Amino acid sequence: MIEMLKKAKAAKAQVSVLTTGQKNAALEAMAAALIRNEKAILEANAQDIANVPDSISKVMIDRLMLNSARIQGMAQGILDVVKLPDPVGLLLDEHTRADGLNIKKISVPMGVVAIIYESRPNVTSDAAALALKSGNVCILRGGKEAFRSANAIVCALKEGLAAVGITEDAVNLVQDTCRESAKTLMTANGFIDLLIPRGGAGLINACVQNATVPVIATGTGICHVYVDKSADQEKALKIIENAKTSRPSVCNAEEVLLVHQDIAAQFLPKIHKLLVTDRERKVELRLDKLAQTIIPGTAAGEKDFDTEFLDYILAVKCVADVREAVAHISAHSTGHSEAIVASDPEAQAVFAAGVDSAAVYINASTRFTDGGEFGLGCEMGISTQKLHARGPMGLKELTSYKYLITGDGHIR
Amino acid sequence: MIEMLKKAKAAKAQVSVLTTGQKNAALEAMAAALIRNEKAILEANAQDIANVPDSISKVMIDRLMLNSARIQGMAQGILDVVKLPDPVGLLLDEHTRADGLNIKKISVPMGVVAIIYESRPNVTSDAAALALKSGNVCILRGGKEAFRSANAIVCALKEGLAAVGITEDAVNLVQDTCRESAKTLMTANGFIDLLIPRGGAGLINACVQNATVPVIATGTGICHVYVDKSADQEKALKIIENAKTSRPSVCNAEEVLLVHQDIAAQFLPKIHKLLVTDRERKVELRLDKLAQTIIPGTAAGEKDFDTEFLDYILAVKCVADVREAVAHISAHSTGHSEAIVASDPEAQAVFAAGVDSAAVYINASTRFTDGGEFGLGCEMGISTQKLHARGPMGLKELTSYKYLITGDGHIR
Repeated sequence: MIEMLKKAKAAKAQVSVLTTGQKNAALEAMAAALIRNEKAILEANAQDIANVPDSISKVMIDRLMLNSARIQGMAQGILDVVKLPDPVGLLLDEHTRADGLNIKKISVPMGVVAIIYESRPNVTSDAAALALKSGNVCILRGGKEAFRSANAIVCALKEGLAAVGITEDAVNLVQDTCRESAKTLMTANGFIDLLIPRGGAGLINACVQNATVPVIATGTGICHVYVDKSADQEKALKIIENAKTSRPSVCNAEEVLLVHQDIAAQFLPKIHKLLVTDRERKVELRLDKLAQTIIPGTAAGEKDFDTEFLDYILAVKCVADVREAVAHISAHSTGHSEAIVASDPEAQAVFAAGVDSAAVYINASTRFTDGGEFGLGCEMGISTQKLHARGPMGLKELTSYKYLITGDGHIR
Repeated sequence: MIEMLKKAKAAKAQVSVLTTGQKNAALEAMAAALIRNEKAILEANAQDIANVPDSISKVMIDRLMLNSARIQGMAQGILDVVKLPDPVGLLLDEHTRADGLNIKKISVPMGVVAIIYESRPNVTSDAAALALKSGNVCILRGGKEAFRSANAIVCALKEGLAAVGITEDAVNLVQDTCRESAKTLMTANGFIDLLIPRGGAGLINACVQNATVPVIATGTGICHVYVDKSADQEKALKIIENAKTSRPSVCNAEEVLLVHQDIAAQFLPKIHKLLVTDRERKVELRLDKLAQTIIPGTAAGEKDFDTEFLDYILAVKCVADVREAVAHISAHSTGHSEAIVASDPEAQAVFAAGVDSAAVYINASTRFTDGGEFGLGCEMGISTQKLHARGPMGLKELTSYKYLITGDGHIR
């Protein structure tokens, strides 16, 4: 492990000064190598799938599973990064003082970026592509369920790097998926410039509690949709169906529905019909006291409003007004994405100003919180913190800056 | 302490939505209150000075000491912040997708910003002013040597806030200066959105090692000046004299001189004349082996190249060329400010690209690394990390952003 850290640090000198053309050629070679190694990657993935413990849910297996189309998608994701502008070496600001001293602010790579993630294999190629395009060396540490898949993918990516004469140490996979290896990354001060954990609340909390290197917490999404009494209810139903059921296993899926109490008796039966009666894959509704008096469902426990289900489960609560919705969100949200469905401009404004989350939606689904949807190409994760980056992290968010000051013997 | 944290968190709702006019009125009232309370502040400061332990150096007492002019300077520092543009509520980016979904990126306050600092009382007023202008609630935790001064200053600032009807909880001073109170701040997740330690290496390391809240490490400056063989030596002497002796107690002062070995025999005697022979307040030179053969001085120990002296001490090392200078800086620098004095454009370019510090100078003194000198007004500290902010932190660096997405029933 320490050997890998040293090699990664040493690779910074080469990777940070690659030209845009060199980086794009490497990305194209990496994408081609993924396609070329499809068979090996699918075999490794099949072994991973065959070895998942029984405790793993179907949703998690869906995250882990690869097929030819998904590998094509991964390669296309890398090629999409080729088209994105190089975020390194940009002149962010410049001024020349009256005394002639020139101050430039220039974007620079972070250095070595470590990513700890769980079972989605496409994170491996997305992260490597974004890191390389932003001039960073990356250290990837995936979950043990997906180790064989990640290893096959990284072997392909290194093959691509080698093909264009770039050090294979630009992309590194931690070979040991025990807990200790994650802890080592969290405390590798002097080697790792940025640690990005991607995954569930347990992983994020472990990083926040234990890391001494700079961390960006990502991807825990207890996302709320609040339906105001002024809502267009047909739009609200479409938004909720999309936010809850289009892909429940991802972090921008809705976990909690808040409904204005004045419309609960009218609106909740429509929700029950939409998400339970009319659906083959039914959603389990976990209802607060008032909702229980209106529609059938499970009685919600207190922790149901603090849980990222990542499954076909929706907690439902009735609130007095938009202010109570904002207060509930402040107390229970992870700061990811929240939506209001309302026609009343005042309710919209109270929600937009009061909700302190990365993405605040007015009359749209929380599912849009995504680097691709926001126009960033692909993404390194969704930051749920306020320091450095918030929401979908693209290339720019993987850079820092430095000041270059030029004088002619200037003293202060 | 927990009461203060709760009050600070509760104050966010009011402070984050203050208009520019309200914030400026508050700053003017705070500046006026400082002047009005000069007598009380100077009395408190005199008590602090009278109680400093004998172990404290003259340099530290200089940092601690206030007088009428310094209080005027603090008030002026607050008034300077009035003139700066409001960093909150700015539309940083906006685009409307082909499907009509509108995505705005808007600057927002961090929330509650805690600052742990040492003995300079002006940090108290600077930090409070910058926090308020950026819509943040601040929690200040100064050193015990300066507690009475800081308390008198914060009382004045709260008087100013009250005068314009803003909650006094916008500016808070931790009343207990024991180590435990700092640890409490470092782990106050859910209450503190950003922790900024300002001070020596011990404090910064304690925060990096122990904090679970987001931290920006600041202000440890082992700053290097490298004199290339191509240097204009007269300019080099002026820069070194300024960087080392104009204010040795501050973080942008030079601590290490690197000299190209080809000019060492010619240049080092000039350094000795400048910093020792011709000066009343002589600089102690700590010399590497080659330098010892050329000029008199103390033999440098290994740790002299890893120490922020903050005093009239300069470590001196001869290097083979600019690449060895860059390598030495990579191994020993704190990432604050480094300068090259050189006429050779290639040496300049190698240094500028290779040195990974917040501020890299070509033919200018490291002393310019300062919010005021960089045009930011005053500053909250000098970040030596790459995450979020680097170099002098002004108002913009005390904000985050959020995405506000507006649709008309949009689903993904």
